[in-house]
Amino acid sequence: MVVSIFINPTQFGPQEDLSDYPRDLEKDLALLETSGVDLVWTPAPETMYPPDYQTWIEVDKVSKPLEGARRPGHFRGVATVVAKLFNAVQPQRAYFGQKDAQQAVVIQRMVRDLNFPIDIVACPLIRESDGLAMSSRNVYLTPEQRKAAAVLYRALIAGRQAYESGGRKAGQLRAVIIKEIDAEPLTRREYVSVAHPDTLIELDRVNQDALFSMAVHIGKTCLIDNFLLRNGNWYTGQLLNETIE
Amino acid sequence: MVVSIFINPTQFGPQEDLSDYPRDLEKDLALLETSGVDLVWTPAPETMYPPDYQTWIEVDKVSKPLEGARRPGHFRGVATVVAKLFNAVQPQRAYFGQKDAQQAVVIQRMVRDLNFPIDIVACPLIRESDGLAMSSRNVYLTPEQRKAAAVLYRALIAGRQAYESGGRKAGQLRAVIIKEIDAEPLTRREYVSVAHPDTLIELDRVNQDALFSMAVHIGKTCLIDNFLLRNGNWYTGQLLNETIE
Repeated sequence: MVVSIFINPTQFGPQEDLSDYPRDLEKDLALLETSGVDLVWTPAPETMYPPDYQTWIEVDKVSKPLEGARRPGHFRGVATVVAKLFNAVQPQRAYFGQKDAQQAVVIQRMVRDLNFPIDIVACPLIRESDGLAMSSRNVYLTPEQRKAAAVLYRALIAGRQAYESGGRKAGQLRAVIIKEIDAEPLTRREYVSVAHPDTLIELDRVNQDALFSMAVHIGKTCLIDNFLLRNGNWYTGQLLNETIE
Repeated sequence: MVVSIFINPTQFGPQEDLSDYPRDLEKDLALLETSGVDLVWTPAPETMYPPDYQTWIEVDKVSKPLEGARRPGHFRGVATVVAKLFNAVQPQRAYFGQKDAQQAVVIQRMVRDLNFPIDIVACPLIRESDGLAMSSRNVYLTPEQRKAAAVLYRALIAGRQAYESGGRKAGQLRAVIIKEIDAEPLTRREYVSVAHPDTLIELDRVNQDALFSMAVHIGKTCLIDNFLLRNGNWYTGQLLNETIE
């Protein structure tokens, strides 16, 4: 079992939080110590991107909407560094968190398109007890903002309930989510999406498969969250006080 | 030993000769039969590029000049298909012909940048007895054009002689080559280059390392050829009637 810890500069835009991004290598290593990890790889940026580095991987269509529209070049950096890690480590399976749902789609598409002999495993999103999806960026939130941030989860719950009550028009489902977000004054919506989970194309009608996702600013922090509907089953993550499989 | 035979559609431009490109699978297989090859892979285009294929590899700087300027998108197609073949076959070493000198540079750069655990081996260019570099496209030439085509080799010889006589100004070396090409009335020059063999940046002065390369139209056929100077040693290919190592 190999774990890589690498804050990848090429997936941050020039106006983004690369220099501020929370890092705590000692704590990370202490957590990994008890997790049965064989090797932790923490390459330096100049190891990954030596002088005259010039090779980039673009996954065209699925990189364009959502986070790709909000963060130009982000998924180019993600796809490129993941391919490098794959080639350096040569795993049989690679694990990615479902919180970054679009990242998982982009990587799955790259693996298929470029014939990487690797199985991609999506790991459930883990939530704080009020439902906030765990993220390194949550430390940016003030106590007041932290409280407001639970609205993302509540909005997704409302979207799911609308679907469970028979709602199938994607526009109505989006509207339910948006109404919930906008009821919290500290939020500013970036996007609310109900899209196909493989193509990320926005849906007109939801049948058995959809990715409900959103990006919402709270102060200077942009939070993302999602619920995945796949073959009629919901993947909504796990609350910290639930049993984790 | 695995050989792939694949006329890669994504490295041909819309105005190029994909449909006419010479194919002779039976003859290729007969030649490979006697060569100790373990596996020949001849994938269909739709196997390599299934519906909704969307992942591309760009090797920025070294793909831009020379063939890259003449054939927009060509090296994107080359880098992408080679990465796919690498992942599918997982070789320890991969062999590329020195005739496509820029292709070898692009692939070497991709291998380094993306951490492919593969050694790239350049194979000498093989020449007909009059010096014409062997190429599938040579069958396009009429007998008169075929005779004229030996001028590429003669021009490179003249360039090497000018260097051996002490010529170090790249502009003068290019001029020697150009004069030779232009003396053959059936030719139309695309480019004549004296560049650094790793960066492909045009040189002002030649010291111990240079790639002398050219693309020359004869009728509708564009031919390429090169001599490589590396650490003061010339790699000019082998004539068919010479012993091949």
